[in-house]
Amino acid sequence: MNFLEERILKDGIVKEGNVLKVDSFLNHQMDIALFDKMGKEFKSRFDGKPINKILTIEASGIGIAAVTAQHFGVPVVFAKKAKSINLEGEMYVAEVESFTHRTKNQVIVAKKFLNQDDHVLIIDDFLANGCALQGLIQIVQSAGAAVEGIGIAIEKGFQPGGQIIRNLGFHLESLAIVDQMDEATGAITFREK
Amino acid sequence: MNFLEERILKDGIVKEGNVLKVDSFLNHQMDIALFDKMGKEFKSRFDGKPINKILTIEASGIGIAAVTAQHFGVPVVFAKKAKSINLEGEMYVAEVESFTHRTKNQVIVAKKFLNQDDHVLIIDDFLANGCALQGLIQIVQSAGAAVEGIGIAIEKGFQPGGQIIRNLGFHLESLAIVDQMDEATGAITFREK
Repeated sequence: MNFLEERILKDGIVKEGNVLKVDSFLNHQMDIALFDKMGKEFKSRFDGKPINKILTIEASGIGIAAVTAQHFGVPVVFAKKAKSINLEGEMYVAEVESFTHRTKNQVIVAKKFLNQDDHVLIIDDFLANGCALQGLIQIVQSAGAAVEGIGIAIEKGFQPGGQIIRNLGFHLESLAIVDQMDEATGAITFREK
Repeated sequence: MNFLEERILKDGIVKEGNVLKVDSFLNHQMDIALFDKMGKEFKSRFDGKPINKILTIEASGIGIAAVTAQHFGVPVVFAKKAKSINLEGEMYVAEVESFTHRTKNQVIVAKKFLNQDDHVLIIDDFLANGCALQGLIQIVQSAGAAVEGIGIAIEKGFQPGGQIIRNLGFHLESLAIVDQMDEATGAITFREK
């Protein structure tokens, strides 16, 4: 078991409806020393890739991306979420529909921060159905840039997002893949490497 | 002139309506090496304070807070913004009204992440009228915690937020205070130390 899986077992809470609450260290309170370990691990998993930029999405991806960026020595761009376009300058806009909520959201990045010379590592905290991630990939590809890899803290392996992205040929690395959660006992089963 | 003021002169763009656009390095694309210098500077300006937690607000405060936290060796909590309460567990909620837009917003932090033993450094990217900051201060005080200091990247010195906060006795440090901007010439005047 790796350091993130250990931390999830220690402080994660399984809630009704396959919800894994990790707000004490990942997405409300943030353990920056843990993020630093995650950044180091991402650096080792994407070693040798010509990454020159990290792309994430507000809000909970930003902290992990910022600390990870220190290990790559590159800037971070964070995509904005919006319900409706408010075009101020030229933007890449990806419209993504949530499988679960049937709501449409827009993922937005200013065109000047992504172009065909960019080699992008996408970072986010969670991957379940992968709606936000699909929007980020769409934006990188609209820019003519390359998705060199995708680094996720926690993947819900029992939801289809991760498998679809791997099937499409992307290099996806999730530091912890949860295959099963039991809200009655609180038990969490991780995928073996 | 310090490193942040120099960077603002180099890459900041003055727009109509007293808007200072710094999205190429601060709040859309993020220069993490710059954030690290800012974190070091905050550490020196709040040296000796018993800070055990950093509080910021989504989205653009998170990156600066995360990197600054490394210099203090403390966790970060980021407050969430909402238009309406969706109480999941117990939350501190501060309702703040924007002076400019006359809109009401809520600033929300889970109660379990702030208590009377906490000594908090508040970090944010911008301070103008100070609406978000007032919400953060209100939340820290609701928790019975202490505001040890407030660290801001860019303060608009021609708007009242900063002066009000200093008048209330808070230790506010802004790395760059813009006293004047001229959209016709693009000139930016910083406050002298």
